[in-house]
Amino acid sequence: MSASIQPITIYGHKGRAPNPPKVHILLDLLNIPWTLVELEMKHDPTDEKSIKHPSYLAVNPNGRIPAIVDPNQNNIAVWESAAILQYITEVYDTTHKFSGKTLEERTLINEWIAFQISGQGPIQGQIFWFSFDRFHKEKYGEAAPPHVVQRFRDEIHRVCGVVEGQLARQKAKGSDWIACDRMTIADIAWYPWSRANAFAGIDMEEFPNLKAWVDRMGEVPAVKHVYETVAGES
Amino acid sequence: MSASIQPITIYGHKGRAPNPPKVHILLDLLNIPWTLVELEMKHDPTDEKSIKHPSYLAVNPNGRIPAIVDPNQNNIAVWESAAILQYITEVYDTTHKFSGKTLEERTLINEWIAFQISGQGPIQGQIFWFSFDRFHKEKYGEAAPPHVVQRFRDEIHRVCGVVEGQLARQKAKGSDWIACDRMTIADIAWYPWSRANAFAGIDMEEFPNLKAWVDRMGEVPAVKHVYETVAGES
Repeated sequence: MSASIQPITIYGHKGRAPNPPKVHILLDLLNIPWTLVELEMKHDPTDEKSIKHPSYLAVNPNGRIPAIVDPNQNNIAVWESAAILQYITEVYDTTHKFSGKTLEERTLINEWIAFQISGQGPIQGQIFWFSFDRFHKEKYGEAAPPHVVQRFRDEIHRVCGVVEGQLARQKAKGSDWIACDRMTIADIAWYPWSRANAFAGIDMEEFPNLKAWVDRMGEVPAVKHVYETVAGES
Repeated sequence: MSASIQPITIYGHKGRAPNPPKVHILLDLLNIPWTLVELEMKHDPTDEKSIKHPSYLAVNPNGRIPAIVDPNQNNIAVWESAAILQYITEVYDTTHKFSGKTLEERTLINEWIAFQISGQGPIQGQIFWFSFDRFHKEKYGEAAPPHVVQRFRDEIHRVCGVVEGQLARQKAKGSDWIACDRMTIADIAWYPWSRANAFAGIDMEEFPNLKAWVDRMGEVPAVKHVYETVAGES
């Protein structure tokens, strides 16, 4: 497919931000070329590498990463990782391998992606925000008490249990994947933050199906390649 | 349309939960009948009205509201408000009035819905969680210090600014609505939490376009009807 397709520009960065890898992984799985524009997490609107520079806010008015610009579709700009996954599959996943082939499949995928971006990412993000002095303490002058971090860790523990239950039900149906009988964009959406569950203080031994799924995802060549190249741990 | 359609079951409740009204509003706009199963926010799995009762977890494994069951489609269960809006429009919004008519419209709608469910709902929810003793203090024994609530209020203030900017750009293009040239499911998704921005401590005078849009949405007959009947302030 890649021969006639112009590279899609991904605005992201090489680091720990969990959402850009979703886009890299899907494009690699579809053999679609991309080029990376590396931005920095700084909020200085006068720095052209900043996610809050006017040139980037013209791409993504929310000033977050990832976003893409697709020269194959009149340079349409797309932001929010879930919307990017939906856009890419609508345009390029012509067999619906990674998106849904039926109303039921599409609904399952949409549910699990919505749950990931609303119930996992923003909650797990708070664990990191309140755990490291360079975030909350630097901005507000004081660290939050441990029970604040615990509130978010407890919620992520609950979320891990929901995913564990789903993977157990899927296993009983003969599937290794979250939403369908194959890896879809639902799995891609859940992977980056789930990969960091242990770093967020979750004991993964409590969630054997989730742990096995994280390991399985990590062995998918496109996933492995993305984490070895553009989504390092630094 | 409603004559041949069996009522869709909405699992929700009559109260302040912001996400169920999204579903009521869209179904009313499409003249699709629904029946409400009222659940309670309690976590007791032995109480059949609880969102954590096994009978409800079979509908929504995440144990949150809203969810729907549609007898017109083999009793498919759909959960996560964004996935429900997508499902309903795919099946019933045959003219794509509330969803997107083109790739560009669908992408805009998906972006703004993804931003709402990831960047507004879960963050504004923390303001309420940490502000009222019946939530955080009751569970953890101590209230969080004011700078914790402030962290979330500052973020919602930023989010209001992003929506304000979008509504100003839309106004310059002649539209009163968030994503397209008409009210869509993006507006429906943004309304319930935006309506509560002031209650979350945001000075809406700072965001005149957002304030005007909240007022405008509140005058849409279907929206008005839902808030007068199933989405009270109690």
